[in-house]
Formats: sequence, C-alpha cells, structure tokens
Amino acid sequence: MVRIVVDGMGGDDAPRSIVKGAALASEEYHLQIILVGQEERLKDELAKTKFSKGKISIHPASEVVEMHEPASLSIRRKKDSSIAVSVDLLKEGKADALVTAGNTGAAVAAATLKLRMLEGIERAGIAIPIPTLAGHSLLIDAGANIDSKPKHLLQYAVMGGVYMNHVLGIKNPKIGLLNIGEEETKGTNFIKESYRLLSSSGINFIGNIEGKDIFTGNSDCIICDGFIGNVVLKVAENLAETIAELLKRELKKSFLTRLGAVLAKSGFLNLKKKMDYAEYGGALLLGVNGRYVISHGSSSPKAIKNAIRVAGECVNHHVNQHILERLANQSPAT
Amino acid sequence: MVRIVVDGMGGDDAPRSIVKGAALASEEYHLQIILVGQEERLKDELAKTKFSKGKISIHPASEVVEMHEPASLSIRRKKDSSIAVSVDLLKEGKADALVTAGNTGAAVAAATLKLRMLEGIERAGIAIPIPTLAGHSLLIDAGANIDSKPKHLLQYAVMGGVYMNHVLGIKNPKIGLLNIGEEETKGTNFIKESYRLLSSSGINFIGNIEGKDIFTGNSDCIICDGFIGNVVLKVAENLAETIAELLKRELKKSFLTRLGAVLAKSGFLNLKKKMDYAEYGGALLLGVNGRYVISHGSSSPKAIKNAIRVAGECVNHHVNQHILERLANQSPAT
Repeated sequence: MVRIVVDGMGGDDAPRSIVKGAALASEEYHLQIILVGQEERLKDELAKTKFSKGKISIHPASEVVEMHEPASLSIRRKKDSSIAVSVDLLKEGKADALVTAGNTGAAVAAATLKLRMLEGIERAGIAIPIPTLAGHSLLIDAGANIDSKPKHLLQYAVMGGVYMNHVLGIKNPKIGLLNIGEEETKGTNFIKESYRLLSSSGINFIGNIEGKDIFTGNSDCIICDGFIGNVVLKVAENLAETIAELLKRELKKSFLTRLGAVLAKSGFLNLKKKMDYAEYGGALLLGVNGRYVISHGSSSPKAIKNAIRVAGECVNHHVNQHILERLANQSPAT
Repeated sequence: MVRIVVDGMGGDDAPRSIVKGAALASEEYHLQIILVGQEERLKDELAKTKFSKGKISIHPASEVVEMHEPASLSIRRKKDSSIAVSVDLLKEGKADALVTAGNTGAAVAAATLKLRMLEGIERAGIAIPIPTLAGHSLLIDAGANIDSKPKHLLQYAVMGGVYMNHVLGIKNPKIGLLNIGEEETKGTNFIKESYRLLSSSGINFIGNIEGKDIFTGNSDCIICDGFIGNVVLKVAENLAETIAELLKRELKKSFLTRLGAVLAKSGFLNLKKKMDYAEYGGALLLGVNGRYVISHGSSSPKAIKNAIRVAGECVNHHVNQHILERLANQSPAT
C-alpha cells in the first residue's frame, strides 16, 4: 500500500484540521497514512474522529515550525520539528510521498536541504492547478523561489509539461510565459531571455501570455518567477472571495434579490466548488527528489483529504521519473 | 472653460467609441473637448451622434499609432499621429488635460518624451483605482515602467498618496508595498531595499501587503513595479469576467436557477457596476508635467465619457501642484 507521510502540526488549524483530513482520507482511499507531530496532541485529535483503523499511524516529532518563522533558519534549528521529521521519513524511504500545510518557506527549505534536487533541475517550483474556462491550467512557480534565472523557467516548463501530460492526460501541453504583452520584444531582460530559451528548447512553447489570458485556459502551463506567481495566486484567491462577498451584500438588499439568491443557490454552490482550492488539495513541489504536496495554510479537512489523494496519485503516475526521462531527451539549452 | 484634448484615433474601437464618448461628455459636463485625428473620419462619426454644439472641436492629425506598434519608435516616426499631436496641444497650453485609449506604451512614451517629468520625479507611474471591500484603493504603477528602482517606488508612493488625499479626500492615506509576505525580510533585494526607503521617508507606510490584501482595502495605495502591477491588473480584470461567465453557465443549468437569476438580476447589475472599469474612466499617468488620463484600449463610450470627467477633475484638484509641494517638503531619502 502506498504510504503518505503527513505533517500533523503544519497549518493554521493544525493539528485539528490535519488529523480530521487524514481520518477522512483513511476512510476513502487505499493508502497508509503516517501522521507526524506531538504524539499526545495527535492522539487526542484522532480519538475525536472516525477513521479507518490500521491505516493511520503516528510518528513523534517534538517541535513545531510556526507559520511565520524564517524558513531555512527554522529547519536548521528545529531538527525535531514535524516538517523536518516528515521529510526525513520520506528521504529514508519510510514513506512514498509527503503532505504539509505548514509554513511554505520552511516546507520548501526542508525539501531542498534534505531531499536535494532531481538531476538536471536547479530550483524547485510550486506547481498549482488553477480553474479556467476550459478546465484547468498549471501555474509554476507559485512561490518556491524568487529571483529565478531564465534556465529555471525552462526547467519549470519541462516539469509542468510532464505533470499536465502524465497526471492530467494532456498530450503535448501548451506552455505560456507570463508577461505584460504578447510580443517577443515585451518585458524585462529576464523575460526576453527566458522567451528565447523556451523558444529554442523543443517544448510546445506558445509564447507570451498576459494576466488576462490565464483564466481562458489557452495555455496548459503558465510559467513565471515565484514572486509574480505568488502574487498572482493570492490576488486571484482573494478577488474571487471579494466578488462573492460583494455579490452577497448586493443580493441581501431586497426581497426579490434574496428570493432569487435562494432559488439560484445550487448554481452558486457549483461555482464555488469549481473555484475552491480545497477540491484540488494543494500544490506540488516539483523538482525535488521526492513527491511533495504543499497545501494552503488554511486548509480544511477536505483540502487535506484531497492533498493526500494528490500525493497518492503522484506516486502512481511516476511524475519524477518522467521528468528525468524528459530532461535526458532535452536538447541542451542552457 | 477647462479644455480636454482627446486622442480620437486611439483604442480598439476608435474613432467610433471615442467620438461617442466625447459626445456624451459634451452633453453632461461643462468642458471644452478637442478631438484629435483624421478629420473626415472624426466628422463622419460626430455627424452620427448627438452632442452639445460649441463644446467639441476637431484638430487634424493624419497618422495613427496602431495598438501593437513598438512604443517609442512609433512616437519618433509618426510625428503627425493623433497621440503625438494631442500631447503637443497639451504641451503648448492649448489644452488643460489629455485623454487617450490608444496604445499604452506609445501614450507613455509620448508623454515622457514630450512633456518631461515633474521636478523630483524620474519615472511616470500609471495609477489606477481598483474596487475593494472598503471602497477604492489606488494601484501604482500599473505598467508605465518595468525594472524600476526602489527610489521610483518611493516616488510612486508620494504621487499616489497625493492623489488619494486631494482627489478622493482621504486624509493621510495608507501606503502598502506589494510583496509575497508581510515580514520585512520577505521578497527580492529590490523589494527589501524599497521597504527600507519607504519606512524612512516620513509617508504613512504600513509595510508589506500581499496579493490577498489588495481587495480588502486596508491600504489606500498599493505600490509596485509596473511589471507586477500590469500582470495583477490584467489577472483581476480577467478573473472577474471569468467568474461572471462561469456563474452564468451554472445558473443556466436548471429552471429554478434561471428563475433565481432573473429575480436577483438587480443585484448582479449593481455588482457589475461596482466592478466595472468603465465607471472609473481610466488611469492617471502620474509624474509627467501635464494631466494625462490613459483609458483601457477596449473603452466603451461610457468609459471615455468618464475618462474625460476624470481629466477635468485632475485640473480642478491641482494634483501635479500638490505633488510638487509634497516633494519639496519630503525629507531627502534617495
């Protein structure tokens, strides 16, 4: 049975939401789950929930990296933190994939320091599926690294393409570079150099795409530096919530609009489900030597359950192996 | 009477939408409008619409800068383009403010080359009001310049603060720096250096804000480099449209949701109005020695009408004069 190690202490509502999510996953999926963290607290939470006996075990870790601690420093100082111990278990082959909803910087640092990178990859990238008019696209990097170089964007493109192909079944996925205009001459020197590199790489590069093109779904992978990817992701999340809130306020204003809202409720709920990150379960940290799912800090139990599912799928789809094969066939571009 | 020069040929649907917008403005506002462009075409369009006689005149310009032409080059080559001639009129004091919905790069280049900058400002910034849960915030720079330096962000902060104070009446506006985390230690070296500069500048700097904070309205001005500002703006615009489209699809699925949508229609329309850039009429190009409104390329006649109103307001609020005064009182930070 595939074994997923779950950082039990990472997340705004940890360990409660994490344990609940693991419990849900244990009932739904054929997976073995190892919860890592402060034993008593995890046991207490587990005692409160229904779960599939024999599919969840607890592995002790005495320390916790808080959500706002500096990333690398916390990993070096807190050797017995739940995230550090989780990564150790993955590295030692005692688990096949990892899930964490903790401090993203610390999660990336732990992966990078302990697991090392895949051969041919210099920087890890957070790859996150985003809903579009056409289905889903993958944004990479959503914030693992800032100040990336053009060759790192090419590596993101290769990894994102492999993911879309082997996990979502999209043949020859279209790769777009996030820029401020469509023309080759647009953007900073960094972007122009990345454009040249992507053009000559042999991947299915469709050129620059703008912020307004992301949600049309015209490109299967959206490639960008982690600074811009992180801002875009947080803008999108928050704008969707803001629109929902503003609409709610408007619909409360009269009897007719209130009645309309009640009748239309199933439509709103379907849309909410489509836009809800909890349905996707989290982002993949691609490029590290291990299967690594990073979930939103405010993950609900459902989001954690789905993150555990995604981690399991990664194992079954051999994403890292396909990335290595793809890189071996890649024309040397850097 | 305040005189507004309007680039009659700039925009996806120019000159039609521009002339229609100018005609609407002539009926609604106490302003003199000078339409610049190919005389026959402007006359033809004007003949088709109702407008206040004596408040619109036409000034000839034989050439047109197309939407995708390279910015500086087109301004240098097409000396008789509608945007170049419009800026000349503004510079010669034959108009008090300018409105264009044409090629943004060319509009910025024409302003920068011909009008020059305000004393103490090195880079112009596009300042655009965005709707938030609290009202409106100003994003600056939305794409006038990329690869800015920390001192340029400080200049944006000063200009944005003056605008919010003198045009929107917000006392001591709160200035936030767009970053990937709240902590002072987050972000690129460029961002960290900008943070230090803003902190010691004496403005009401509230620190870093994340993409998720933009629409809460906690900060009155959101400061960023033009690359990221442009991407954010286009993401936000497109996501709002995507959500509307997805919701429409969902609400069409059953009789009940269709009925609900009809009853709730006024709520949807109110929200649409709140989110609609056409209501705000365009962005200001702050920092150049002249009052300069840049509208969306796809501006409707209503958007052009509102842009002309905004241009008029700029004249009445003496924004540039207040910027100069603010800079004179600024402690030397660079």
